[in-house]
Order: sequence, then structure tokens, then C-alpha cells
Amino acid sequence: MPDTTRSGKTADERSTPGTYAPTDRTVPTRARERAAYDRELVHAILDEGYVCHLGFVRDGAPVVLPTLYGRIGERLYIHGSTGSRPLRAAGRTDPGLAVCLTVTLLDGLVLARSAFHHSINYRSVVVHGTARTVTDPEEKRVALDALVDQVVPGRSRDSRPADTKELAATAVLRLELAEVSAKLRTGGPNDDPEDLALPHWAGVVPVAPRYAAAVPAADLDPSIGTPAYLPGG
Amino acid sequence: MPDTTRSGKTADERSTPGTYAPTDRTVPTRARERAAYDRELVHAILDEGYVCHLGFVRDGAPVVLPTLYGRIGERLYIHGSTGSRPLRAAGRTDPGLAVCLTVTLLDGLVLARSAFHHSINYRSVVVHGTARTVTDPEEKRVALDALVDQVVPGRSRDSRPADTKELAATAVLRLELAEVSAKLRTGGPNDDPEDLALPHWAGVVPVAPRYAAAVPAADLDPSIGTPAYLPGG
Repeated sequence: MPDTTRSGKTADERSTPGTYAPTDRTVPTRARERAAYDRELVHAILDEGYVCHLGFVRDGAPVVLPTLYGRIGERLYIHGSTGSRPLRAAGRTDPGLAVCLTVTLLDGLVLARSAFHHSINYRSVVVHGTARTVTDPEEKRVALDALVDQVVPGRSRDSRPADTKELAATAVLRLELAEVSAKLRTGGPNDDPEDLALPHWAGVVPVAPRYAAAVPAADLDPSIGTPAYLPGG
Repeated sequence: MPDTTRSGKTADERSTPGTYAPTDRTVPTRARERAAYDRELVHAILDEGYVCHLGFVRDGAPVVLPTLYGRIGERLYIHGSTGSRPLRAAGRTDPGLAVCLTVTLLDGLVLARSAFHHSINYRSVVVHGTARTVTDPEEKRVALDALVDQVVPGRSRDSRPADTKELAATAVLRLELAEVSAKLRTGGPNDDPEDLALPHWAGVVPVAPRYAAAVPAADLDPSIGTPAYLPGG
């Protein structure tokens, strides 16, 4: 008989390469059933998004900025001008910059009979860690390709690569996927039994990003058609 | 002649009720032309969204969590279980909880000929301030309605209001809109002149949330049709 726990999993199953090890700050204080540590799930959420909210501490106060990211294996890359605040801070601070990087995908509006049980269906990933400036030129180049391809897969091969001057003007930060959790809410409303007979509509309004047909730049050579990898192409 | 500055505005125009006064942390170190402090613009961005990313500092490290918000005038309200971390922290810390609340609306993918000039069209609002627990029951009730109506305007009137027990189980934080900035990117790619003849497609892929037809809960009384304020209703 395997050494099972209350979760029904053996000790080996609790710490496989397939999951991120939970830590104090990745185990939520509430709604624990919504938390997940599965690597494939985390990667799938990260790969569906491309905008993250990056949090860091500046003069003791929190700062949260939206920014683009790219994933390569167990690393996330974020970039910006070498003059931007988080990137300057990361370069300035010797051991790197403590960050919290959060990606949220919105899946639906959940309407319950009671105002209290209104909610949102979503999938999110929260990464805690230390962002470090990428100094190796080859890693930087590959990371910048990943950032472009995160937004439009394959696009980096159909654009002019960054030149030496542009690489120098771009700071890239690396964040290891180590202290990571996903959080999800799915399904319909969870009304209290005594509310089920109330005359209010209840259910879910699904939501997802809609990409419209690509609009060419005003100065684009008209002989260049919309590529097949874009909507309308 | 008015006392004009380089911006062409008089001193009076620089500090009208129509704008938030810029502070050190709401003036970006780069891309300053993308920053805006106009109240109507800030309100419009906040009113179009309903999910924010709330940043706070816990044990010296940043934490960023997605959460719902509602706006009433110059106040934002966020809520959660009284057991959740930011809300417990706000209640615990006497002068409130230092937060950064960021709302980001994504408008388009910007594809340039050069990888370097790829970007995103977006509108975002960043609010710095101190979140304080709402203790007044009437303010709490109104705030909870605002949270529901932020997601689906008018919905609070078509649901069972929170009862005393639910109000007690819900912590609501208030954040004043005082130190606020908006940031926007609009328009097409900004390629370097020497790249304009490259054979790569350039332009914008517009993106916006798409709401599908509302899906009734499995246990909804079939005689209750989809309300007119929902997609498919």
C-alpha cells in the first residue's frame, strides 16, 4: 500500500517534477481549492497571455505596472527601456529586484441570485521571485524573440531582428519559475439553497479576447498582404 | 497675456479640478507623452474595466493579486473575504494598507517591421494610495452594489442584496483617487525610416473583450429569460 495522505496522493506524487512546490506565500489563506501548482497548467495559462502585471517595491511602497512578457521553459522574460524604473532598479540592486508577476485571463462573468455570490471565472498565475538583468547577449536576443512570439507566435521570424544599438537600449529581466501558483474559478454561480427560487436570472456570461482583422499601417506597401498568422490573413 | 509655460497652458490650467496633480511617482521616467492626468479620461478607463491588479507589500516583498473593483466618484472600492491577505493586512495596519491599484485595457497588438518596435495599444490607470477598511455599514452596502454594477451595470437591482451575515463576512477597502495617472498608447507602429521598405507586414490587430450569449445556470427556472442587460437577452 502506498503511503497516502488525506489528499489521496503519495509523498512521491506530492513532489514530482510536474508541480511547483507550494510555499507560504503561494498557498492562499482562503479558497485553497482554487489554487493549483501543476506545471502544465501554469505554462498553459502563461502561454495564452502576453500582458502581465509586474509588482515591485519602490521607496517602501508597492508599484504595479502592466508589461509584456515571454516564456522560455522555466524562465519568464520582461523587457523595457533601460531607463524604466523596474529595470533600472533591477540593475541597481545587486541581488536583483524582488518582484511579483501576475498574469490573469478572464473567462466569464458569474451572476448569482444573490449579490454576494457574484464572481468572475478566471485563470491566473502568480510568480514570486527575483528578477535579474540579462547580460549575456545571446540570451538577450533569444529572450526578445520570445517576447515578440509571445504576442504573435512566429512573428519574430517575420520582422527585422534587433541590431546592436537596439539590444543595448533594451533591458531584459529574467524571472525563474520556481515559486509559482495558479488560481482558477470555473463553472456556474454557487447560490445558497434558500436563494434558488428567487426570480433573478443566474448563470455565466462567457468572455474572451476578440481579435479583429489586422489593419495595415498607412505607409505599408500595398503589395504586402496580411500574413496568414494574423486575423484576416 | 496669460502666464504660459512650454506646455502652452497657464498655471491655472495646470491645476484645475479636471486633472489629478502629478507626483514624483505618477510621472514616468520614460514615454512621458503617454502619461495623462485628466479626470474624465481616468474615470472612463476605470469605468470600462472591472478587474484590477492590486499590489501591496507583505513581509517586505511585493504581492500582486487580481481582484474586482467598483468606482463611486473619487473613490474605488475593492472587496474580498475578511480572511484574505490584503484585507486582513489593511485591517491590521492602523493607518491602512499602502497599495498600488492598476487597471489595464488592451486595445491592439502593434506589429512593426522591426522586432524592436513591436508594442501594444492599451489604456491603463495606476492609483497609488492607502486602502482603508470601510466600517460604516451604509457605505459598505453602497460599495458592494457598486462592485456588482461595475461588472454588469444595473445588476445590483436584479439580485438579492447582501444580508447582515454576508456584510459581516465581506471586507471592503476604500481607496481615494488622489495620486492617479493614466497611460495610453494608440495608433500604428513607429518604425524607423530606414525600415519602411522592408518586406514585413506592419500594422495593428485590434483586440477587445467579446461577451458571448449568457449561459443560464443548470438549475435556473426556465421561465426566467435572459435579461435585456446581458448579451443574448
